[in-house]
Order: sequence, then C-alpha cells, then structure tokens
Amino acid sequence: MAEQKLSSGRFKEIQDELLDKFNASIFFDNKLYEEDIKGSLAHAKMLTNQGILTEKELEDIQKGLAEVKKEIEEGNFVYDIKDEDIHMAIEKRLTEIIGDAGKKLHTARSRNDQVAVDFRMYVLKQDKIIAAKIKELINSFVNIAQNHKDTILPGMTHLQHAQPISFAFHMLAYASMFKRDYERFMSSYERNNLSPLGCAALAGTPHPIDREQTAKELGFKAPTINCLDTVSDRDFALEILFNIATLSMHMSRIAEELIIWSTSEFKFVTISDKYATGSSIMPQKKNPDVPELIRGKTGRTYGNLIALLTVMKGLPLAYNKDTQEDKEGVFDSVENILLSMDILIALMNTLTINKDAMLKAGKTGHLTATDLADYLAKKGVPFREAHHITGRAVALAEDKGVDLSELSLEELQSIDERIGNDADMSLVNSLNSRNSYGATAPSQVQIQLKYFKEFLNEN
Amino acid sequence: MAEQKLSSGRFKEIQDELLDKFNASIFFDNKLYEEDIKGSLAHAKMLTNQGILTEKELEDIQKGLAEVKKEIEEGNFVYDIKDEDIHMAIEKRLTEIIGDAGKKLHTARSRNDQVAVDFRMYVLKQDKIIAAKIKELINSFVNIAQNHKDTILPGMTHLQHAQPISFAFHMLAYASMFKRDYERFMSSYERNNLSPLGCAALAGTPHPIDREQTAKELGFKAPTINCLDTVSDRDFALEILFNIATLSMHMSRIAEELIIWSTSEFKFVTISDKYATGSSIMPQKKNPDVPELIRGKTGRTYGNLIALLTVMKGLPLAYNKDTQEDKEGVFDSVENILLSMDILIALMNTLTINKDAMLKAGKTGHLTATDLADYLAKKGVPFREAHHITGRAVALAEDKGVDLSELSLEELQSIDERIGNDADMSLVNSLNSRNSYGATAPSQVQIQLKYFKEFLNEN
Amino acid sequence: MAEQKLSSGRFKEIQDELLDKFNASIFFDNKLYEEDIKGSLAHAKMLTNQGILTEKELEDIQKGLAEVKKEIEEGNFVYDIKDEDIHMAIEKRLTEIIGDAGKKLHTARSRNDQVAVDFRMYVLKQDKIIAAKIKELINSFVNIAQNHKDTILPGMTHLQHAQPISFAFHMLAYASMFKRDYERFMSSYERNNLSPLGCAALAGTPHPIDREQTAKELGFKAPTINCLDTVSDRDFALEILFNIATLSMHMSRIAEELIIWSTSEFKFVTISDKYATGSSIMPQKKNPDVPELIRGKTGRTYGNLIALLTVMKGLPLAYNKDTQEDKEGVFDSVENILLSMDILIALMNTLTINKDAMLKAGKTGHLTATDLADYLAKKGVPFREAHHITGRAVALAEDKGVDLSELSLEELQSIDERIGNDADMSLVNSLNSRNSYGATAPSQVQIQLKYFKEFLNEN
Amino acid sequence: MAEQKLSSGRFKEIQDELLDKFNASIFFDNKLYEEDIKGSLAHAKMLTNQGILTEKELEDIQKGLAEVKKEIEEGNFVYDIKDEDIHMAIEKRLTEIIGDAGKKLHTARSRNDQVAVDFRMYVLKQDKIIAAKIKELINSFVNIAQNHKDTILPGMTHLQHAQPISFAFHMLAYASMFKRDYERFMSSYERNNLSPLGCAALAGTPHPIDREQTAKELGFKAPTINCLDTVSDRDFALEILFNIATLSMHMSRIAEELIIWSTSEFKFVTISDKYATGSSIMPQKKNPDVPELIRGKTGRTYGNLIALLTVMKGLPLAYNKDTQEDKEGVFDSVENILLSMDILIALMNTLTINKDAMLKAGKTGHLTATDLADYLAKKGVPFREAHHITGRAVALAEDKGVDLSELSLEELQSIDERIGNDADMSLVNSLNSRNSYGATAPSQVQIQLKYFKEFLNEN
Repeated sequence: MAEQKLSSGRFKEIQDELLDKFNASIFFDNKLYEEDIKGSLAHAKMLTNQGILTEKELEDIQKGLAEVKKEIEEGNFVYDIKDEDIHMAIEKRLTEIIGDAGKKLHTARSRNDQVAVDFRMYVLKQDKIIAAKIKELINSFVNIAQNHKDTILPGMTHLQHAQPISFAFHMLAYASMFKRDYERFMSSYERNNLSPLGCAALAGTPHPIDREQTAKELGFKAPTINCLDTVSDRDFALEILFNIATLSMHMSRIAEELIIWSTSEFKFVTISDKYATGSSIMPQKKNPDVPELIRGKTGRTYGNLIALLTVMKGLPLAYNKDTQEDKEGVFDSVENILLSMDILIALMNTLTINKDAMLKAGKTGHLTATDLADYLAKKGVPFREAHHITGRAVALAEDKGVDLSELSLEELQSIDERIGNDADMSLVNSLNSRNSYGATAPSQVQIQLKYFKEFLNEN
Repeated sequence: MAEQKLSSGRFKEIQDELLDKFNASIFFDNKLYEEDIKGSLAHAKMLTNQGILTEKELEDIQKGLAEVKKEIEEGNFVYDIKDEDIHMAIEKRLTEIIGDAGKKLHTARSRNDQVAVDFRMYVLKQDKIIAAKIKELINSFVNIAQNHKDTILPGMTHLQHAQPISFAFHMLAYASMFKRDYERFMSSYERNNLSPLGCAALAGTPHPIDREQTAKELGFKAPTINCLDTVSDRDFALEILFNIATLSMHMSRIAEELIIWSTSEFKFVTISDKYATGSSIMPQKKNPDVPELIRGKTGRTYGNLIALLTVMKGLPLAYNKDTQEDKEGVFDSVENILLSMDILIALMNTLTINKDAMLKAGKTGHLTATDLADYLAKKGVPFREAHHITGRAVALAEDKGVDLSELSLEELQSIDERIGNDADMSLVNSLNSRNSYGATAPSQVQIQLKYFKEFLNEN
Repeated sequence: MAEQKLSSGRFKEIQDELLDKFNASIFFDNKLYEEDIKGSLAHAKMLTNQGILTEKELEDIQKGLAEVKKEIEEGNFVYDIKDEDIHMAIEKRLTEIIGDAGKKLHTARSRNDQVAVDFRMYVLKQDKIIAAKIKELINSFVNIAQNHKDTILPGMTHLQHAQPISFAFHMLAYASMFKRDYERFMSSYERNNLSPLGCAALAGTPHPIDREQTAKELGFKAPTINCLDTVSDRDFALEILFNIATLSMHMSRIAEELIIWSTSEFKFVTISDKYATGSSIMPQKKNPDVPELIRGKTGRTYGNLIALLTVMKGLPLAYNKDTQEDKEGVFDSVENILLSMDILIALMNTLTINKDAMLKAGKTGHLTATDLADYLAKKGVPFREAHHITGRAVALAEDKGVDLSELSLEELQSIDERIGNDADMSLVNSLNSRNSYGATAPSQVQIQLKYFKEFLNEN
Repeated sequence: MAEQKLSSGRFKEIQDELLDKFNASIFFDNKLYEEDIKGSLAHAKMLTNQGILTEKELEDIQKGLAEVKKEIEEGNFVYDIKDEDIHMAIEKRLTEIIGDAGKKLHTARSRNDQVAVDFRMYVLKQDKIIAAKIKELINSFVNIAQNHKDTILPGMTHLQHAQPISFAFHMLAYASMFKRDYERFMSSYERNNLSPLGCAALAGTPHPIDREQTAKELGFKAPTINCLDTVSDRDFALEILFNIATLSMHMSRIAEELIIWSTSEFKFVTISDKYATGSSIMPQKKNPDVPELIRGKTGRTYGNLIALLTVMKGLPLAYNKDTQEDKEGVFDSVENILLSMDILIALMNTLTINKDAMLKAGKTGHLTATDLADYLAKKGVPFREAHHITGRAVALAEDKGVDLSELSLEELQSIDERIGNDADMSLVNSLNSRNSYGATAPSQVQIQLKYFKEFLNEN
C-alpha cells in the first residue's frame, strides 16, 4: 500500500522496502483469494440493492472479479509485495480492469471486516472438510472392526497384558474418539457461522447497508452482533487449532500403537509395503515412517495453537496488526491434518492384521485373572478377597512357568477350594462373558458397530 | 496400595517409600471425595437392583459412606499416603467401618472407571459453574453499557484513535466475547455428559450390571459407547482447559485496556481504592494490580492446557499412569479463573468512568476523518478517491495544529469543493450516524443491550 | 499490605477481602523465607558499613531475624493474608519484635529488588542442586554400562531392529544427554549469578549503598548493571524452566523405553517389585507406573515453561504484577524433576537386565545386514550396490524363514559370488567391528566410560 | 527413495504417491544443500586419507559436487519428490554426473548422521548470525542512550508513574536484556559445537574412519562421544528455539512500549513515516504496524519451541521419523527473528524522541515522592514512617490539584516539620541523586554506556 499511502497526503516519506517485506501478507494470504472475491461479490450486490452502486457498476465489478479470478487460477496474476495483501491486490487489479467502479467497491467496508470475513469463511469451510474426512477415517476403522469381532488380542493397561479384548473393540475405541472430534468441528462451525461483513473498521458504517443480505448470500446464519468484537475476534481460528490439536493427539495414539505393533517383538500388524519405507544404509529395514510422522506432526498442531493463543493475549480492542499472525498456523495445521488423515486412512485400509500373533500374545500374561476374581465374586466372595486369592493363583502359575489358564483344577483348588469345575478361564469365554454395555463381547461390539454406522450414514 | 499389593501374593518385595511419595495422588485427588462417594452410592444401588448386593449390604454401604463423608467434611479423615488415592482411601475406611460389604463394593468396577467417572463429574460441574459465573461477568459489562450509550471515547485500532464509539459499545464487545465463552462451556458440557461407570478396567465386566441406571442416577445423559476409549478419554478435561484458556485470553484483553486506561496519560477510568494497591517504597503509587494479575494468570491457563496435551500425546490404549497428571492442572485453571472472574466483576462494578477524559481524547486524532470520506462517497466520489481527499484534509489540519473537526468549511473546500455545508463532522453526529447492524450508534447499542439481556434471562 | 496502605493516607477506602485473596502471594512465596532473611541480613550489614544503620540497629535486626527464622522453622510463624507476601510478613514481625530498627531495614531497597534477589537466589541454588542430582543420575547409568559392555541387544531405529549394539552403549547415550543437561544448568547458573539487591523500585537509590558488598555477601559474582532491567528480569527463571523441560524430555525417552522393554513381548528388563505397582481389579498385573509417571510429568514441565513465557510477553518496563505468576511454576517444575530423578535413580539401580531376552531378540531382524553391505563395500563394491545386494540376501532369508546370519555361505554366494568365506556375520563380530570413535564396540565403550567417569569426578 | 527401495529387493510393492507426498522433506530441507555438500566433501576427503576412496574418486566427487552446487545455485537443479530429501537428491545427481564414485560416497555414513551434521551446522551458523545481529540491535539502543542521558521521562512500574529516569537508562535496560540473549546464543554454540559425522545409522561403522579429521574440517571442536545419542540428539535445535523465543519476548516488550508511547495520549516517540503504515478506510491513521507485528511474532517463536518439545517427548532411541519435524520450525523462527531484528534496528535508528512530552509527563504523578521519603530517611526517620509521611504529602497535593513537587515548603512542613529547606524535589535533582551502581543518574549511565561499548567492541 506504499504508493497509495504516500498519495494520501498523510505521509511525507515513502516507506522502506524492508517494511514491505516485513509487513506484507500477500505471499500467504493469497490462499484466501476465492473467499475474498466471494465476499466482494456479495458486498457489491448488496450495495446495489441499497442504491449505493448502480446496476452497471455491479455488472462491471462482477465481470472484473471474474477476470481477476481467472487470472489467479491460471497463474497469470502478479503478486506484488507493494500491494501488501490479497485484498488490496485484487482491488487494485479490479480497478485497472474496470476503472472507477472498482474504487467504489470499498464503500462501507474496511480491510478489517474484509479480512475477518475471508478468514472466517476459510475456517468454516475447513471445519466441514475436516469433519467429512473424519467420517472417512472412522469408516476405515469400522471396516476393520467389522471383520475382527472375534479376533482376540491382549487388551493392555500400562502397556501390560490386562484382559482379552477383540481387535474390533480396539478399533472402535478410535471410532469413538474421532466421533468426538467430528462433533467438536461441527459445534465450532455452528457457533461461529456468523458474518463479519459490514462491520467496517471497528464501529460499523453510516452507509445504509444490509448485513443480513450479505450474511445470507455468503452462507452465514446471521450477521454478528457487535462490530468492535467482530473485527478482532479470532475465536473461530483458535477453535479449529484446538480441534486439530486434539484430533492430532488421538491420531498420535493409534500411530504409537501401530509402531509398537509393527515391532519384531509384537508383530500384531504388518504395514503394507506401499506405506512403509527402507533405510539408506540398512538393507533389511522396513520402517513405519508413516505413523511416526503422524505422531511427530502432533508437535506442530500444538505449536500452532499456542502461537495464536500467545498472539491474542492482552490485545487491546479492536484490530491490531499482531492478528496478521493468525493465518499461517491455521493453514499449516489444516493442511497437515488433512494429509495425515488421508495417509492414515490409506494405511489402515491396507493393514494386515496378524491374528495368530495376537492370539499367541493373548496366551501370556494371565489375561483371565480378572475372570477368576469375578468368578469368585459371583460365588459371594468379597471382591477384595477374590482379588487376593487370584493374586496367589497367578503367583503359582508364575512359579510353574505356565499361564494362569493352564493351571489344572486341582492346582486352582489348592489355592481356594471354592473354585469349582464350572470355572472356564479360556480367552474366548472371557471375551464373550464381558457383555456389559460398551464392553468387548461380540454381542456388544455388534451394537457399537450399528451405532457408528448409523452415525456415518447421517448426513 | 502397598500393603494390599504385597498381600496379593503377586509381589515379593514391599514397595519403597519413595514410590509411595512419587505415585500417590491422594494429596490432590481428595478434592474429588464427593464425586467418589456419589459414584459409589450409585454403583451400590445398581448392584443391589441387579441382585449382586443384598439390601442389607446396600444399607451398610450407604451408612458407611455417609460416615466417611462426615469424617472428611469435619476434618477427621486421615489421608494416608499408603492408600495412594482417594478411591482406595475411602474404600479402605468404609471397610473398616462396615466390614465385608465394603469389600464387595468394588465388584464390577475398577479404579480406571472410578477415576474416570469422578473426574468427569467434577469437570462437568465446573463447566456449569463457570458458565453461570460468565453470565454474572456479562451482566457487569451490560450494566455499565446501560449507562454509557452516549459516552464517547476514541475507538482504537492499533491503539491509535480511529473513530468515535460509545463506551457502551466497547463494553458490549466483551459481552459478545464472553457469550461465546459461555457457549463453549455449555457445548462441552453437553458433548461430554456421558457416564464412564461400569467400564471397569478397560473391557467391561461379566457381571450383569446396568450402566443406564448408574448414568441416570448420576445425572448423565447416557453411558459411553466404548469402554476401551472411555477409561483413557480425557477430552472433557482438554476442553475445559482450552475453554478456560480462551476465556482467560479475553479477560487479558480487558485487563490490558484497564491498565492502559488507568495510566496518568489516559485516565479514562479510575479503579476503586477497594481494588487497587500501593507501593512499599513509592508513597504516591496506586497500582492496577488486579488487572495485571488477571492478565498474568493467562500464562498458567495456557500452560495447563499444553501440559495435558503433552501428557496425552502418543499414549497407547487404554489407561496409562501418565494420565494421573490430568487433575492438578484442571484444578488450578478452574480455581484461578473463578477467582479472576469474581474480582473482575467486583472491579467493573465499582469502576469510575471518566467521561470527560474520554471525550477530550475523542477530540484529538481526527476521529471523524472516515466520516468525511464517507460523506464524499455518498456524494458519488469513489471511495478510494474520497480516502485520498480526506488524507489531504488531515494533513492540512495537522499543519494548522488543529483537529480535523475544527477546520472551517472554507478550509475544507480548499481541499475539495464538493464538500458542502451539510458536512457535519462532530463526534456526536459521527456516533449517531454509524447505525448499521452491530454498529456503535445508540439505536444499535440498544438492540445489542436487548440481545444480551435476553441471553442473561435464559436459563 | 491493606492496613499499611490505608494508613499511608494515599487511599481512602479499605481494600476488599477479595483483593487480599486474589493478590496475596504469601501462601506460596513463603518458600523463599530463608532467602529473604539472608538478603535482609546482607542489606542491613551493608547499611551499617555505610553509616546508614548503627551497630546497635544491626544487632537488633540480626537478633530479630534469627528469631523470625526460628519461628518459621518451628512452625510458630503466623502467615496472615493481610501481609500479602513473605517479605512484608517478615518485616512486620521483625518490627513487632525489635521496634523501630525494623522499620529502617527497608531503607534503600524496595520489594521489587527484594523479590528479585530472593527468587534469583532460590533459582541459582536449585540450578546447582539439580546439576548435582544429574550427576547421580548419570552415575546410575554409568554403573549399569560398566557391566554390560558385551550385553548385546538389537539397536533400533524407528523401533525396528537395526544393528547389534551393547546395552552399555545404550546406557551411555543417556549419560551423554544428561551431561548436556548438566552443562545447561551450570551455564545458566554462571550467566545469571548477579545480584539485584540495591536496585530498589526501578531506578536505584540516592542512599550511599554498596552493591558490591551485598553481592559478595550473598555469593553473587557481582551486582547487575542496569536496575530497570533487573527488577523485571526473569530470564533466570525461564532458563531453569527450559532446562528442566529438556531434562524431563530426555527422561521421558528412557521412560518410554523402560515401558516398552517391560512388556510381555520384549521382556528386556524387569523393574524391581519395590518400584512397580499392582492393579485394583487385575491381580496378575505388575505395572511400570514409575516410568509412566516420569513420562507424564514432562507435560507439566512444558506447561510451566509456556506459562512464564506467556506471562512475560509484551510487559512494559519495569515491574508489573503479572510477574508474581513467576514462582509457582518454577517451584512445581523443580520439585517434580528432583523427585522424578530420585526415583529414576532408584529404579535404575535395582533394574534387572535380561541379557538372554536381549540376545534372543538380537537374532531376529537381520541385524547384520549392514555388516554384509559393509563387507562388500570393503571389497570395493560401491556402497549403493552393496546395499542392493544385501537387500536381496535379506529377501532370501525372509523367504526361507531364517535370520540373515543363518544363511549358508552357498546361499549367500548365490546372491553374489564376491561374498567370500571370510564373511563373519555373527552378532559378536558385528559388535566388535564397529569401533569407530563414539561407536558401540567394547573398546570404544571403554573410552566413553572413562570420559563419563572423569566428568563425574570433576567438581 | 521409492525406486531404490523397490530395487533393493526387500520390498515387493511400489510405494504409493501419497506416501511420497507425506514423507518427503525435500521441499524444505533443500535449504541445507550447502551444509550437505560441505559435509560430503569432508567425508570424501577423510575416506581418501583413510584409503577407502582413491585420489581419483575424490577428485571426481569434488568436481561433481561443485557441479551440483552450481546447478542448485543457478536454479537448474530439479527437486524430485521421489528423491525424498536433499541428501538423496544430491547423491543421486552426483552419481548421474560422475558415475560409480558417487555410489561410494555413502560408505561409512548414513542419512541419520548426514542429516544430523547438516542440520547442526545450519543451527550453529545461525547461532552466530543471530548473535552478531543482536550486537547491531544493542548498538542501536546504545546510540540512542548516548544522546539521552539527561532526557527525563517518568519511570513506570505497573504502567504508573513511579520515579524520574532518563531515556538513556531505559534504552540500556534493553541493551542489558539483549546482552543476555547474546550470551545464550554463544553459550549454545559452544556447547553444541561437536560433529555427528561418522556416527552412521546409530552404532558407528566398521570402516577405519577418522572422525577427528572430519570434525576439524567442518569447523567443529571435536566429534561427539556417543553415536546412539548423536543421531537422535536435537538439543541444539531446542536451544536455538528457546533462545529465539526469549529474545522475541524481550523484543515484544520494547514493541509494547513503542506502541503505547506512540499513542495520542503519550506521544513520547514518533515512528518514522518510513516504518509506519496507513489505513484502508481511515485517512488520518498512522499505525505502528512494525512493533505490533514484532510483538505478534512472539507467538510463532513460542509455538515452534513447544512443537519440537512435543515431537521429542517419549521418543525411543535412536532415530525416529518424527524427528523430521525438527526443521521447519527452526527455519521459521530463525527467519522471522532476523527479519524482526532488522526492522527493529531500522525503526530505532529513525525514531524521534519527544523530549518535551516525556518531561511534561514527568511532572505529573508525584514522581519525587520517594525522594521525599528518602530525604526523611536520611534525616533518621525510619523508612516505613517516612513512607507514611510522604503518603500524606501526596494526598495533600492531590487535594490541591498540584504535583508533589509544586507544594510549598510551608505546606510540606505542615505535614512534618522535619522537612527542611534543603529539600529539593525537582526531577533533575531526583535523577542526579539516584547514583547507586546500576542506577539512573547520568554518572551511572555513563558507566553503563562504557560497559556496553566495550562489549560491542569485543569480537
């Protein structure tokens, strides 16, 4: 805006090139060109309805903006650092093409509401794109679950064998997390679906504008209620950053599990060659780079969140230039989470589940110890006492070098004679018996599958 | 749990005291005693309904837990590091009081779902407490706004005088922010209002429990759908931490403004002596400690958020001890935000608004420059050209050492002869003329006041 | 300071109790009582040397402060919220005990330099305490290394078997990290070892004080150079928070490894019963709570760092009340890291290393593939080609279901006939052959052991 | 590396393009091309010295790498996503140019040590570049200080007038902060100046390499001591991120002050038109965008720090792909801090200091109240009592609507008759009298100027 600034008469010295370099956002906010043009079209249409622009001027603006859009999309648009941002660049080019009508477009608006409306439209669009992608992600977990209701693996707490669970149950735990993620993005979308357009610099405008109209035109529910707040509100951006950070955290958990499950020691799963990599020096290596990088990318999503929280801290009303720092982090988080989801979906869809290795692991670690305690509790032994009895049974098994499930009835009865011959401590029995609501029994997993499929079929 | 552990027979060496010290959460999770007892009561009642406990056992447990609660609230309960956490401590004491029935209470549950249900109940309760407090906070801003629809101050962007606005309008910008905060807490409450109870260790239980019943009993909408997810889900805690961080950020903004407005240079407001402090060395000082500390406390709310995000990153399913680190940060954020809101409310309610100082400031900085540009635009001058003309008028005023509003008609016409004698550039006219939706004109502020009052009257 | 404030005549209303509650730091900064008294003693001695206090007054102050210290340490000191902070509380009590001389103590100083000197002394002391503890930690790793120069385990990248390494080599990787931590704490100590005392409120004092003397008396290298900076400088606190965060991150890495190594699938190590815990519901469980909690505590160290960075952002000079938020996070990080180190040391010192399990694991995953490539490279085959040849050998081994090291010479030669009978692909040979500087061969590990022992013996 | 991977025989399916897109770092790590080539040259030279490469091969490699470097710098190098990273891309191109010798270059190294050495060289170089720029920054503050030893402004605490200080003194507070920043960067440089080259994948190499030689060749002090640590050590990157965050925090403080000082209410300084901007809608505006953006950029420096801390948390040894996330944040922080420093230097060098406005402000707020208290203290009145007397004097001045310094001797004596006619409470006297070490008196500021100039002249 250097040139214009000087021509305004307010400034007596031309600005330094270093300032342009420092100040300009055009090399990253050009990502908003489409939103900017949409916003201008809605604004121009409304100005015409309100008698501020003539039909002819509107027509010129529409043609001009279509031309600008074409130039941008065909790569013929010249981004000039002197234009400072995409808003100025488009308006300047528009005026070059159509003349005076272009200069009238900025009536009753300011860059402050322009940038607010552009960025908000971008974020709301991404909220929905990410939410839709989350459904795809859930779908890939549901599909695996569909086929593994009876695939037993050792359920873990503290990464120690705890109780037998099915792989379907494990997959649906992630479906459950991701569903909350979905809800957060959609809730954020709904809450922030309000139009900033027409707030002008900070205080509204004396021109007889119709904010309802532009709001509707742009797909917003309504205009915002207080302009001073609106031009400096970036809650919608903080929310998408937090929602991405949380989604990313959930993805880091399955990533961690995939890495551990892919070790030579676990071998619970095999990542497809299509999504694994080799080593520059060790010819035998097959590395789980994808889940590692998914896990690693959690870092930048946390960083981008803390960055914008820091920017916003203590800012007086209304617009401050600090806020220009809001966009790059959001762009980065959005692009990385979408790419991470794409590849996680692809990886899950091609994942080999090694049922044998899982089952074999299930047979170590006395997974059915709780079953013994529960068996005794059902017989009326107070749970705490049943817990102690089972502890002794485990110790006996350890001493004999076998799994608890391999102790004979006699051996068990040597621990406590209340253990009868109806005691079945097989993994399968254990799995099937845990059939409380939300539990791992196949009958329960079937209910969960139905629940998630219905969710996926909602629109 | 040291003693119990050894007695279980699984362990052959008693644990080190250092481990107790490191591992125990009892000295902070005792804050959850009430939720723990509520959860146990609901669990016992359900176990009785399902025929797992007898009516007599239930009665004993109810009496026993009432006794434990009394001991805690009267300060007679002994917190022993050996009990590790509040859950074990209460159960142990219960068993001391009522004997065997106490040992049966742990049937069909685990510490994993117990801690999940206790902590979730605590967080959901705080969501609502904070939301209610936010309404009080909004009310204090609305009350000020009520009386200052015509109080003019220089609206700022970049902390530079921009356009005249009313103090009411400024106050309602904060009402608008805080309303979003309210919505976030309530949305989080709704989304997470599901019961973990009955998930047991990770995989549910073979006992014929009724999770619907305990959910309803405890005020939850329903039980959660997947137990493996449930026992390691801390999304509800992350959400309250994020919501507090964002609320805190908003509060840091009014804090910053109060500090600046209280300077000797601004003097826009005077903080009541009741909420200001002096200096140990400089007798003349009156310091805005309260807004400074409110601003400073933003730091810990950000820190607590990043702390839990860090904890959760990359955790394999299901429960891991890392998660024990979830509580202290939440307690800290909750307590600090409630205290900060209380004192901000008190401070706002006793704040002196210096209308004269605000008005005087409004008369510097050519606040009505945009009005001149808009005047010209309404006359058909393209906005960009009108902007340049006004720039020259401002330069003229600067040269003459007066405010733009003080230039004579002749002087203005020397800049551009399209400026007619209908050009009114007074602050009052400027304020009144900005009456687009959401703008600063008193008529618009009236609409906003109605909007926020209706919101406050909803329950 | 409420009472005093009012009595000063500057304030006309007594402050609200809510303000005391919000403002007071006495319930956490009392941790600095010892530093506060030391600082006062040094200040009083200097004031006497400079003729500002009489010998008699000094004597009274010394006796009085000794009495106050005794009261605090014996639990007889009453912390009153009205005193606001430990500095005021001690001074008030001192004056109660000794009368007028107590009131003179505050000559030529302010709470701003008093809190700066107290907190800095605390942090510098902790820098050294933590550094000393790091040496103990390194020592425990070195001790293990001492005995495991020939204990082979699969060195991993991407958690996949890569090349044979010794457990000693692995342990010394941590020694190496922790040594950098040590250096950071000591470097921070040296850089910040400057006295704030005598800076008074912000601008120094007209009294003829001797800052050199108080600096020396308190163990500082010298007084700080610019008082305005000094009273609001918290770099020393940020540094300890960062250094703790980084140390904590290193500890989270060994914690993660201990957790993975303790799984039923790996069994590389066994944590002593003294430092493991059981489950409330699953009697067979033995959980690695200690490393999990160490890993989890990384969260709070990151959070405390980001909290203070947030607090300091954008603060105008000099002292602002925001800075009061500097202490709790530092106390928390310091206490948690010291406790975490203590228990990690104890855990490492009692850790069982399962050499057999490690060796067995070493025999899967074609660990010596790089050795084959290197063998070929030494024979003049370009490394990239050697890498490809080895890849084919690995594929052959996989097809045959054996480890690369188990292929016969004929089989190897069927891949490439340049492989001669001098090709030794045993794990031991591989380990011994990697004897470049810093490598895993026992001869190299011996050099590393010497290096770390020398470091531990420095003082 | 897709092609190569398949050709190695280890993989049976070609990798998906999505994997390339997700995995490749070449589009950001190409910034390290120069370090990569330097590292390869040093490695090749050493291999030749050790008899592993022939002189002819070395010569080919040198010529080839020179050619590659030229192609890159002239923009003729084709970055292919299939090459994955800059290391592979350069090696592949080298081999295209020189044939087999290129394939031998990777002998006795791995990408793990290659990326470690490249990135470390980059970071160490930036440590020094930033340190040098900090000296320029300090110089700009020292230059202003040089001319303003007698320019009085109100020193502030809590943003309230506290005591008279000189603008020179204020500028040197920043010199003092930035000097600590300088020390941190240089300390980090020294601590991390060790060569990773030759560590190979994780465990060293069986080839007879000379790590001392490559270390020296590349300007490192020595090789690192433990290879397993070295390939996954990113402490040097964390340190530069923390050091930049802290520097950025300091810059946010002067930025905040410049913004406040530029307000219409303060007018302490005027930012040059060359470094200020206008408004798109308000023609009269002149905005301090530069300091606002400097302040805002603090956010990303905090974010980048927390991002890498998050990445590193809980990573098992040694290299994990997560670590690839280390670079972008460092590049971003480095580039932004250098640009921010450049423009802050330019802004400070062209800043107008409004001495009159500062002096006028100094005459409000009873700045010399502490002087009165100190005067009384020197007369033997206990400081706490002197403080109270002065409080009453301030109240009297407030009642009379004058500054404390404007009270007549009679009026003062009506407060306390110990106030004699030697009481001089002018601002100038106050400034001159604060001449303790580090204080604001011109004589002390002179000492500080000398101190900083000597520092700037060291090299």
